[in-house]
Amino acid sequence: MNDSLGRQMYQWASDLFPLNRSLTGDGVRQTLSFIKNKLPKLEIFEVPSGTEVFDWTVPKEWKICAGWIADLNGNKLIDLATNNLHIMGYSISVDKIVSRSELEPYLHSLPDQPNAIPYITSYYKENFGFCLSQNQKDSLGDGPFHIFIDSQLFDGNLTYAELLIPGETNEEILFSTYICHPSMANNELSGPVVAIALAQYIQSLESRRFSYRFLFTVETIGSILYISKHIERMRKNLTCGWILTCMGDDRTYSYVPTKDGETLTDSISRRVLKDLGNEFLEYSWLDRGSDERQFNSPGVDLPIASLMRSKYGEYPEYHTSLDNLEVISPAGLSGGLEMLKSAVVILETNDCWKVNVLCEPQLGKRGLYPNFSTKNSISEIRNQMNVISFFDGNTDLLQIADKCKIPYNEVLKILENLKDSGLIVKAETRKRD
Amino acid sequence: MNDSLGRQMYQWASDLFPLNRSLTGDGVRQTLSFIKNKLPKLEIFEVPSGTEVFDWTVPKEWKICAGWIADLNGNKLIDLATNNLHIMGYSISVDKIVSRSELEPYLHSLPDQPNAIPYITSYYKENFGFCLSQNQKDSLGDGPFHIFIDSQLFDGNLTYAELLIPGETNEEILFSTYICHPSMANNELSGPVVAIALAQYIQSLESRRFSYRFLFTVETIGSILYISKHIERMRKNLTCGWILTCMGDDRTYSYVPTKDGETLTDSISRRVLKDLGNEFLEYSWLDRGSDERQFNSPGVDLPIASLMRSKYGEYPEYHTSLDNLEVISPAGLSGGLEMLKSAVVILETNDCWKVNVLCEPQLGKRGLYPNFSTKNSISEIRNQMNVISFFDGNTDLLQIADKCKIPYNEVLKILENLKDSGLIVKAETRKRD
Amino acid sequence: MNDSLGRQMYQWASDLFPLNRSLTGDGVRQTLSFIKNKLPKLEIFEVPSGTEVFDWTVPKEWKICAGWIADLNGNKLIDLATNNLHIMGYSISVDKIVSRSELEPYLHSLPDQPNAIPYITSYYKENFGFCLSQNQKDSLGDGPFHIFIDSQLFDGNLTYAELLIPGETNEEILFSTYICHPSMANNELSGPVVAIALAQYIQSLESRRFSYRFLFTVETIGSILYISKHIERMRKNLTCGWILTCMGDDRTYSYVPTKDGETLTDSISRRVLKDLGNEFLEYSWLDRGSDERQFNSPGVDLPIASLMRSKYGEYPEYHTSLDNLEVISPAGLSGGLEMLKSAVVILETNDCWKVNVLCEPQLGKRGLYPNFSTKNSISEIRNQMNVISFFDGNTDLLQIADKCKIPYNEVLKILENLKDSGLIVKAETRKRD
Repeated sequence: MNDSLGRQMYQWASDLFPLNRSLTGDGVRQTLSFIKNKLPKLEIFEVPSGTEVFDWTVPKEWKICAGWIADLNGNKLIDLATNNLHIMGYSISVDKIVSRSELEPYLHSLPDQPNAIPYITSYYKENFGFCLSQNQKDSLGDGPFHIFIDSQLFDGNLTYAELLIPGETNEEILFSTYICHPSMANNELSGPVVAIALAQYIQSLESRRFSYRFLFTVETIGSILYISKHIERMRKNLTCGWILTCMGDDRTYSYVPTKDGETLTDSISRRVLKDLGNEFLEYSWLDRGSDERQFNSPGVDLPIASLMRSKYGEYPEYHTSLDNLEVISPAGLSGGLEMLKSAVVILETNDCWKVNVLCEPQLGKRGLYPNFSTKNSISEIRNQMNVISFFDGNTDLLQIADKCKIPYNEVLKILENLKDSGLIVKAETRKRD
Repeated sequence: MNDSLGRQMYQWASDLFPLNRSLTGDGVRQTLSFIKNKLPKLEIFEVPSGTEVFDWTVPKEWKICAGWIADLNGNKLIDLATNNLHIMGYSISVDKIVSRSELEPYLHSLPDQPNAIPYITSYYKENFGFCLSQNQKDSLGDGPFHIFIDSQLFDGNLTYAELLIPGETNEEILFSTYICHPSMANNELSGPVVAIALAQYIQSLESRRFSYRFLFTVETIGSILYISKHIERMRKNLTCGWILTCMGDDRTYSYVPTKDGETLTDSISRRVLKDLGNEFLEYSWLDRGSDERQFNSPGVDLPIASLMRSKYGEYPEYHTSLDNLEVISPAGLSGGLEMLKSAVVILETNDCWKVNVLCEPQLGKRGLYPNFSTKNSISEIRNQMNVISFFDGNTDLLQIADKCKIPYNEVLKILENLKDSGLIVKAETRKRD
Repeated sequence: MNDSLGRQMYQWASDLFPLNRSLTGDGVRQTLSFIKNKLPKLEIFEVPSGTEVFDWTVPKEWKICAGWIADLNGNKLIDLATNNLHIMGYSISVDKIVSRSELEPYLHSLPDQPNAIPYITSYYKENFGFCLSQNQKDSLGDGPFHIFIDSQLFDGNLTYAELLIPGETNEEILFSTYICHPSMANNELSGPVVAIALAQYIQSLESRRFSYRFLFTVETIGSILYISKHIERMRKNLTCGWILTCMGDDRTYSYVPTKDGETLTDSISRRVLKDLGNEFLEYSWLDRGSDERQFNSPGVDLPIASLMRSKYGEYPEYHTSLDNLEVISPAGLSGGLEMLKSAVVILETNDCWKVNVLCEPQLGKRGLYPNFSTKNSISEIRNQMNVISFFDGNTDLLQIADKCKIPYNEVLKILENLKDSGLIVKAETRKRD
């Protein structure tokens, strides 16, 4: 683990935390601008409100200037200025005096988590609302209240960005993450900051077999929009992909498979998690909840899964003001990054190799076998012999790790050890089914 | 559950109970006549004794007029008139005075169930016998005895019946049941009475995709005879089928799979049992014991399974006089009927559907999605989203129920809900492998 | 179990025990000569040192005349004459006075098994060494010592032998065993002596569908040499094969599968072990350690597994002087032989059969079914009915034993019972995939 890199990612998350992101608007633009500063080749796109994409329409752009509930003396009881979550996303303007009972339908709190402000939006139906903790709600008093929201919904743009890191082939790996969540840390600033570090890592590789594409967009409408523009290319070129979400806390590791469940993406994901050596939670497709929903939808059918730390919907702070910078940590983010880097290592090295002699090669004369055959030495080089026994030109390293019940890195080490011997050759690239 | 229907079936069983059915004869004819009264389109067939069918020959017809064991004072100790089981099926005539020891080989009882008269037949070897409870046997006395059976074995007919309920296609579903058991309730009057109610239900459907065929015949020779006449048609048209046996007690649900074990019949059977929400017993092909033996035999290979309440051979009253009208109940019969009706519902609706937009449809604008996206509402429509994610035109509703881990009815409800939206279309019919 | 045969095999092992076998040399020749005495058709081959076989070279022949450690008074402390294991295999000559510390690197013992002399060789790197128990080592004293080995490494031959027992077809079954281990009983004299008895058994069969080939060679280089000469024929003709090793102790049964794991060899092996009715240990390909390594290597890919008693490396006496004649027993050897004989029985009888009538045959009229159908008799002939239900011309007896959950012998017995009935015919030979 590179602690300084973990601290770096944590700092980026801290810098981005105050920005008021939403489905559209300046919060998104500021966030993308920050990311472009780290990844200069990032391309930023604006798509006009009203653009039709499959069954959906790009919504109006939302601008929020102020929002509060005050008593009639002007004391602000709830204020957007103190927490971006206080005003329901996409709230329309309002400015009136209301009684407590008139206010009630517009108040959203979580009785079971009395300290938490819930995160609520109403993107596709015009409405307004105030989100507050149950404790705040309980102490609002009897009113009357002055409620005020100054916002605009107008024909603007939806903003997203992508980064292509080209490789030797145009077969692509996709990493997709979100920049639509205001002031929440694990879900969702952890995604973009790990994505930045991962992209920097991939850019730093001397060579790349695959091309890597990073997508920074907004959930649901953003990925639908992207798919509508690029479905043909993705169908042709996309080999694997992951949604980068919930990557920053340090409690567990989680995995939501593709709909198919048995793609190369899934094999790599399971191997990466096994090799981490920690317990992890494997969820089912039925537990999905992010943009793998769009990428795996019928007719789109792209092999996109999610490798996460604590999964959305499964940790108590999820979608509340409690998902703050204390939930994530440098170690948590490093763990998230490490998973994805391991996946990249597998993608870049997962070849089939072939022993170029029949029967076992004589390792002893090459210094690859102990000279004495004793009771103990028999087991010493067992892993090496096991790996060699599957170098048949048709079994890839990922499958060999499974068959030999050893970590992928161990297989790689054995491969490196043998490469110099001249005993093995790389087989013609085999496409997995 | 329709209790009045349960009571109706129970009444039919009570009406049929006293008739002395056997492999052939008037007991069978009276039973079929009763059934034809409920299902007027039933066709009744007579096949002459001596007809050769595959490895078998239709046996002589048996007529039994009287049978008893008496003491020499003419006191009847055992009498056919009191229980049809007292005379072994297909017993030939006898009229002589015998000592106790001469009688012994002709007495059949069950020492472990001292109150039960066993049910025994000797269809294919001429013989006679008296069946009685162990208690009766113990109190017979030392004799001598007058034993008397007045029966005839003659060139007559074997009688069976079938009902065809035509549908839109000539693909057929077979329900086969027996009318050869005298005065026993779960095995076997429950089969015919549930068959009557099921046939009436199917006749009442507004439309039927499949044609449904009901076979009321005698076990083994009856189904062999039927297969010998109709094997070509069945090979061509038969999609699924079930043996209706042991459908009337209320203790458990049971299932004997087809020999293949993975046919559509099996998938439907397992789904039906799961959806009942009760525990059920899945047996193996090795536990079979009824006419699925013939239908699944090598070279016949039809996908016929058994959905039952307590399975033959597994409940204590089986094949004894204790399998009387107290063993079955309106609720038990209703449960048996309900299983089969559920199977019919699946057969009639198990299509593949396809979402006609790429990516997830926008359910919100169609009133199919809650307006607020809160922590709780996310899971609310999860089942609907899961089902939609498998509407790929290639996964049938039965498979979707399995994949989404929800009852078939739940899938149907979601389907109905979506039909009006114009979002989905039925895929061209796909034949299962 | 044939106890006299067990005692016979034990006697052979006792006769062969004192011979000082190695990779080459007169110990091997004497052993093969002994075997040829039991199997006169055995062919013995000599292959010159220096012959190149794949990645390997046939080593020089080794002749050992004497070897000891003595004190300066000429008292021998360790002497080849007392145990063949005392001199490391392939030790070169040495004759000098050394201090205790100079001697130390040439001493091999097992601190955890203070009574055991370890078995150590250095075939491919010129060296010398003394193997001794830890107790002997501890009592050697401080020296100086006179160490002496009189041996020769010269251009000679590697000796091996094979026996072909021809059958009706040239499809072959291979049994391969080793004759390179000095004075150890379970690993390895049990292998050759069981091989002799098995070959005699196969020779005694009235007819043989398969041809059987027995290979008596030295481990690793011996099988590599053999493969290099016969790979084409084996690829074409070899159906199944087993390594005969560790067949003589009476503690457990063990099995190392082929690399593929699902070949006919594996199905037969698993069935044989199940039918023995004892617990057995199924290892994985990763646990292999004998010549199945060569036969299953990439590009060779022959379906060779190992059926054993206690597996090499898993029992405490393995590769030490403790693996003596007390480790094996007549009963242990008989058990090992019985496994392989059962495999031969399966190979010779594993056909597909077909009922030649549709539906169940009428067994009653053929005396194959009880006349009374009572509660109890229903289960009596269940196995027979189950087997018949799979006589579809496409399921072999081995598969039927699995499906019917009965021993293979039980299937055979039922088959024999039915053969006379004229009800079944053997199907055209079907090749397993």
